[in-house]
Amino acid sequence: MSSQAAGNQTSFLGATDDYYNMCHPWLCQPSESGILVLLLLAVLVRRHCLWPGCGHGRPRLPSPVDFLAGDRPQTVPAAVFMVLFSSLCLLLSDEDPLPFLTLASLPNSESWKILALLYYPVLYYPLAACAVAGPRVAYLLGSVLSWAHFSIQVWQRAECPQTPKIYKYYSLLASLPLLLGLGFLSLWYPVQLVRSFTHRTGAGSKLGTRGRSWPGLGGPGSCELRPFSWAPWEGWEQLVVLFTIPLFLDSAGFRLPLKLVISATLTGTAIYQVALLLLVSVVPTMQKVRAGITTDVSYLLAGFGIVLSEDRQEVVELVKHHLWALEACYISALVLSCTLTLLLLIRSLTTHRANLQALHRGAALDLGPPLQSTRPSRKAIFCWMSFSAYHTAFTCFGLLVQQIIFFLGTTVLAFLVFVPVLHGRNLFFLRSLGSSWPFWLTLILAVTLQNIAAHWVFLKTHHGYPELTNRRALYAATFLLFPINMLMGGVVATWRMSLSALYNTIHLICRWPLLPSTAIPLPTPGYCTYRNFLKLEASQSHPAVTAFCTLLLAAPSPRLQAPVDPKGNLRTGEEEEGLQLLQTKDPMAKERGPRASRNRARWGLAYTLLNNPALQAFRKTALSGAQANGAQA
Amino acid sequence: MSSQAAGNQTSFLGATDDYYNMCHPWLCQPSESGILVLLLLAVLVRRHCLWPGCGHGRPRLPSPVDFLAGDRPQTVPAAVFMVLFSSLCLLLSDEDPLPFLTLASLPNSESWKILALLYYPVLYYPLAACAVAGPRVAYLLGSVLSWAHFSIQVWQRAECPQTPKIYKYYSLLASLPLLLGLGFLSLWYPVQLVRSFTHRTGAGSKLGTRGRSWPGLGGPGSCELRPFSWAPWEGWEQLVVLFTIPLFLDSAGFRLPLKLVISATLTGTAIYQVALLLLVSVVPTMQKVRAGITTDVSYLLAGFGIVLSEDRQEVVELVKHHLWALEACYISALVLSCTLTLLLLIRSLTTHRANLQALHRGAALDLGPPLQSTRPSRKAIFCWMSFSAYHTAFTCFGLLVQQIIFFLGTTVLAFLVFVPVLHGRNLFFLRSLGSSWPFWLTLILAVTLQNIAAHWVFLKTHHGYPELTNRRALYAATFLLFPINMLMGGVVATWRMSLSALYNTIHLICRWPLLPSTAIPLPTPGYCTYRNFLKLEASQSHPAVTAFCTLLLAAPSPRLQAPVDPKGNLRTGEEEEGLQLLQTKDPMAKERGPRASRNRARWGLAYTLLNNPALQAFRKTALSGAQANGAQA
Repeated sequence: MSSQAAGNQTSFLGATDDYYNMCHPWLCQPSESGILVLLLLAVLVRRHCLWPGCGHGRPRLPSPVDFLAGDRPQTVPAAVFMVLFSSLCLLLSDEDPLPFLTLASLPNSESWKILALLYYPVLYYPLAACAVAGPRVAYLLGSVLSWAHFSIQVWQRAECPQTPKIYKYYSLLASLPLLLGLGFLSLWYPVQLVRSFTHRTGAGSKLGTRGRSWPGLGGPGSCELRPFSWAPWEGWEQLVVLFTIPLFLDSAGFRLPLKLVISATLTGTAIYQVALLLLVSVVPTMQKVRAGITTDVSYLLAGFGIVLSEDRQEVVELVKHHLWALEACYISALVLSCTLTLLLLIRSLTTHRANLQALHRGAALDLGPPLQSTRPSRKAIFCWMSFSAYHTAFTCFGLLVQQIIFFLGTTVLAFLVFVPVLHGRNLFFLRSLGSSWPFWLTLILAVTLQNIAAHWVFLKTHHGYPELTNRRALYAATFLLFPINMLMGGVVATWRMSLSALYNTIHLICRWPLLPSTAIPLPTPGYCTYRNFLKLEASQSHPAVTAFCTLLLAAPSPRLQAPVDPKGNLRTGEEEEGLQLLQTKDPMAKERGPRASRNRARWGLAYTLLNNPALQAFRKTALSGAQANGAQA
Repeated sequence: MSSQAAGNQTSFLGATDDYYNMCHPWLCQPSESGILVLLLLAVLVRRHCLWPGCGHGRPRLPSPVDFLAGDRPQTVPAAVFMVLFSSLCLLLSDEDPLPFLTLASLPNSESWKILALLYYPVLYYPLAACAVAGPRVAYLLGSVLSWAHFSIQVWQRAECPQTPKIYKYYSLLASLPLLLGLGFLSLWYPVQLVRSFTHRTGAGSKLGTRGRSWPGLGGPGSCELRPFSWAPWEGWEQLVVLFTIPLFLDSAGFRLPLKLVISATLTGTAIYQVALLLLVSVVPTMQKVRAGITTDVSYLLAGFGIVLSEDRQEVVELVKHHLWALEACYISALVLSCTLTLLLLIRSLTTHRANLQALHRGAALDLGPPLQSTRPSRKAIFCWMSFSAYHTAFTCFGLLVQQIIFFLGTTVLAFLVFVPVLHGRNLFFLRSLGSSWPFWLTLILAVTLQNIAAHWVFLKTHHGYPELTNRRALYAATFLLFPINMLMGGVVATWRMSLSALYNTIHLICRWPLLPSTAIPLPTPGYCTYRNFLKLEASQSHPAVTAFCTLLLAAPSPRLQAPVDPKGNLRTGEEEEGLQLLQTKDPMAKERGPRASRNRARWGLAYTLLNNPALQAFRKTALSGAQANGAQA
């Protein structure tokens, strides 16, 4: 099998490569025993995670990530998704997509790679679920699991840092985000475990338990709606979010939905992975080619009729210099596209925030046709499910296209302008530009003259109102300057197309949130996904609803039997936040005296009615009776 | 010089061409005598055309085209512009841009070509001005001039149908619109001349005279505002417009501005000229190459390592077949792009009409930020002047880009799908598509399953309202299907980019009127030009203003001394039209009894005040006095 892998490598690179210091392939894969340990742990975690859910009578699989809960730490899901995405990227250079099978001898490795796409989420499912499950044992299992994953990955990279495919260190470099994510998790779980021992009602477990025991507004069946909590900002892990997204500091009281945080993290990881792939798949090869150029190249060029110089050594220097220029163009295009993508990611995050806040306020979005209903629908759920994945795929695709276009652009610019100027030859482009001065002069003169004439000759102000005058001269000038204006139109059209191409290239990635749908009159699945995602987020995690739930929780009503939070001041903070997000201008909202208790009682009534629909039949009579009483009083 | 021209031709085509039956270059140019006759005629026409304007005291050059007058026949300016544009297109294949100079020996022919851009409008200026000037002598001179132009062109093409550059019959084919335009003019002028003899107050001259003698609203200086006339529909020349733009029949009472008619004519001519250029510059060469293929081609291909077949004759057949496929792709791409451009031209004309009608009604346009003022400004005048030229240049440029993109598309499609299927070999693309069925099956299954789950599992209707349910399963599915959704995102991104590229290609030409400016957040000169053009057209030829002028003309007031039209019923029609265009819902507008005469008197007062600003100081007192009288009565 080793020889076969080497053969594959040879055919891939097109030439034998003596740089590789290959280790045996079996060393490069996590052994079956490691996988078995992982699976066993996963099963254990699963069995354990079922336990807290048993309170409701039937065992349920814990969810890996609570996407719609606003009160959870967002770093753990982001780290898990980063690990998952990096594992998928490593599939590119892997001979054997599934670690427990050596498939190099199997016929249809394409299908096995697709199977691997299902295998990796299952592999990291328990790692994510341990954070959601909550109790101490889950943290313990999470710690063990993350340490196992992390040590296997570190051991694997240390044992075999080089890979046969793409570039010898590609696998090592591509696994850096993976190691970073696993390293973070293997620190986070022990910290949570220790914390749960030091103060017995740890924030995470408490919220988790309350979240599950608290029925939401949707009826008795859907019991996942959780109160919004401001507390996690005290956790050290939030500092990471605080550090990475500093632009969100200006909007106090707003927290990005978890899905958007995951998407942003994935975009960052995707930028790294795609840039790495683009860099290592081209630059080392170009450097090798450059190093391998000898005086034979002059014969090769002469075969194509190109004679750069009589001196062969000079030809070698020239070719090397041109190749170096090409390499510089490639790297600068890569830097440019990565920077632009990053900047647009930040800009799109602010747009996301603005859009979500507008939706929370019930405002119409600048996102095409208004949403018919904020209620969830089949399409909205489907779009919400696939949003992060689409976002990541669009980033990868856009970065690839940007790289191609920017590389072409910089190469044309370098070889038409910079290199000729530097070498002092092949100046034909600059010379033709220089010899076309009558053309440019004519255009500039025509535009200037027309503007001057439009201002001083054809326009006349009568009693403060500008009016058209000298119409004959205007018509004559229009007729006579028609051919030159046509040339000007050609220049404008070229300029417009270049600008439009550049604009489309830059905005390819973050196009959905930045442009209104009128820009794209055709059905665009990506844009549609974004709109429906926003709709579902706004309908399912509206801060007003979460604030209301908090109010109910904090209410001293014995009928509701809600667990009363010991930190009453935090709850008040949440109410404030909910009201602030809605930008209620009502000054009454801040006066909470007997009116607040009455409101609370009314919310309680509404809640009771929602949970007991049978009572609704009696409600109108009751209400009219109450109103009649109010009128009598 | 002949040998030099032949040398140029050889270097241009890259090979000697024995198909040409070249005539001597001096035969192909209009002789200096012809040019002198033309200039003399032009001077005569100019001198004559000054005459009618002398009524106001100072001689003025007649305008070539009355762009803003709504009552003129629109076919003559359209024909003149078609002739002018075709002459400019013929410059491409001309060795000597200026007919009276043989410049092949002059050093800087680039500058002379720019000079030719000024020469041709001057050449056709008198031809256009004769139609505007109006009186019988102008028609006579116009007839002579158009016949001279037409006969010179016909003689030139008949003497020397073949040209050395581009393609032997290019010059002949490219001059067809020129001959068509000149032929039309050489018929139109005699007809008008005869008509002016048969009924002495011909429509054209009458309107022209009245137009000049009628002062507009802008003050005594600007005397070009003319009443709107419905009469020209009776003219046979309007049948041409009626025939070419049938879509305007449904909106009775609306007439496209002359500039738009000219732009549409020019777009049609540009489609013909660009398509002709694209066709004759490529297809004959390809046919020659195809005809010249011998068995030597197999050696040539073997030199590049390509062995199509062992049998040399089969190789020749294969190469010929491939070249034929390439030619078919090129022609079908050309047909496709021309058809699309034509269809989009028609669509853009309806958009122009809708936009103009909206502006006339004072409605806000869907054209980006609302226009600050409908008054003319420097920018509006400049944009209005260059509108038709820009429109034509955009059409030419867009057609070129469309041809390139469609040719690439059809070639890729043909050589990846059709040719392999036809020949039964090189099926690698179809095979790889076939072997990727697990990938596509996975995607389809994932999308279907997610949609089914979203509808049946995750959505639950409570009391008529859909609600999210089974959140744990939803989160788990979202997590597990993330990698497959990412693949789906990649497919969607590819699809979106292809669609977007196609859309942008198709709409490149007619982009300004079809898309709102939000689609193009960057400053786009073309779009800006269109908006300002519309603004100036709406402000200068508003149908309500023209209807008002007609009312004034028809008023039996002796003070105004306006020439009373004998056909009173036509005037009423115009009033109706003006009101209809404004879509006044007021039923009072249709009751014209004593109220109508009072209104007429008020318009007369307004007109008097406009022409005598000194009276405005007394107006308020007069009005308040009148109001006081009204109150007493």
